[in-house]
Amino acid sequence: MNLRVVLVEPLYEGNVGSVARSMKNFGFHDLVMVNPCKIEDFGSAMASHARDVLQMSRSFSSLPEAVAGANLVVGTTGKRLETEQHHLRLHLRVPCFTPSELAVKLNGKEGTVALLLGREDCGLNSEELAICDMLVSIPTSGEYPVMNLSHAATVLFYELSGAENGATELASRQSLDLLRERANSLLQDVSYPLHKLDFADLMLRRILGRAELTEREARSLLGIINRIRWRIIHGQEDGDRAEIVNIETTSKSI
Amino acid sequence: MNLRVVLVEPLYEGNVGSVARSMKNFGFHDLVMVNPCKIEDFGSAMASHARDVLQMSRSFSSLPEAVAGANLVVGTTGKRLETEQHHLRLHLRVPCFTPSELAVKLNGKEGTVALLLGREDCGLNSEELAICDMLVSIPTSGEYPVMNLSHAATVLFYELSGAENGATELASRQSLDLLRERANSLLQDVSYPLHKLDFADLMLRRILGRAELTEREARSLLGIINRIRWRIIHGQEDGDRAEIVNIETTSKSI
Repeated sequence: MNLRVVLVEPLYEGNVGSVARSMKNFGFHDLVMVNPCKIEDFGSAMASHARDVLQMSRSFSSLPEAVAGANLVVGTTGKRLETEQHHLRLHLRVPCFTPSELAVKLNGKEGTVALLLGREDCGLNSEELAICDMLVSIPTSGEYPVMNLSHAATVLFYELSGAENGATELASRQSLDLLRERANSLLQDVSYPLHKLDFADLMLRRILGRAELTEREARSLLGIINRIRWRIIHGQEDGDRAEIVNIETTSKSI
Repeated sequence: MNLRVVLVEPLYEGNVGSVARSMKNFGFHDLVMVNPCKIEDFGSAMASHARDVLQMSRSFSSLPEAVAGANLVVGTTGKRLETEQHHLRLHLRVPCFTPSELAVKLNGKEGTVALLLGREDCGLNSEELAICDMLVSIPTSGEYPVMNLSHAATVLFYELSGAENGATELASRQSLDLLRERANSLLQDVSYPLHKLDFADLMLRRILGRAELTEREARSLLGIINRIRWRIIHGQEDGDRAEIVNIETTSKSI
């Protein structure tokens, strides 16, 4: 598993430097930022012997660019956002794990995991959380749940550094996106209510995120959806009735 | 379990403030320092909403004062000290745990655990490590093992916040100290080589640290040592031969 650390609009260079140091402490090197603050002397000082991580980091102006190519996108949230996210979590079934649960989930997986860490003052917003396959939240005290950015990052790196590389190759982002796109088209084919489409799309992303599909599984699902759509458009042929029933059963049981 | 965080000669107020914040994030409030740097505006800013932890903190001029009354003293060490400590660890059987192992060890225990965190530049020195009952070390990358003080503290707080209070009352520091003192006297009673006494004393501390004695066990051991010493001084009485053999067996098997 290759971990890509994505800082979304970090405000303080000291925190960016601290995150870089902590990354290197736990063997991670791939740092990406979205619209970061200026990183000058203080940030570099806080990075200490991890200045190379800062120097090799890449910056983008949008989140989709920053997560491009990642097999799995994991968002971090604090308790402070719990109320705001209540709706999002409950209704969209966002799987929210503790750091150790996430480490177990990712153990033995092969691929790139983008770990999103939000702004110091308000974290990740709803749109950013919506593109995440899973969420992770650090269990903190109700008395003062708001952690410093680099502290939260350190806890996550500490847990994830224990995850071992394995032979289970995660589905590519391309296949997952194609799968969602085709599923969306399928819903339109069957005249699924337009105002529920966004909800269904997000729900599907959650389910696929939790499922941690392999490339092979993603392609099989794609094949099934393509077949269903073909039948809907071209109508059913008598000889294929039994086979189609099989396909529907398979698709329901996933 | 009550956690007392002991910062030994911290050099930077920003780190002290950051540690205070992280403590409160994980529900800890008892901060003690030995000869700290001045804590002014920056330290206070880094503590953020945990300024109360800073305000309630206590400072001492010596480590023994800072750990007074603690049932167990746990020292933190980094990989950078591994070579220096090799001798200490190997020959004195210092039990060195990972943070999660330490959390398991302390789970269900009742008492005060003093967690020692050393200077930013050189950690805890040999004398300070020598008074620890156990050591804890965070598994980091060999490429850059030196963590920021507040990052290391955060990982430890994260792990220890999961430890539950329990009914197993740890032996008091007073009983443990008395036990070591009497054991030392016993060694002198039997003319144990003087140049080996320090070593034996430290080894005994390690074994007692690993054993996590309850108050009852500590008192029973004290009784056994007292009895042995009494016999050595006053000589053996015929009628008690069998009983003494029993006591010796018990003491060996501990």
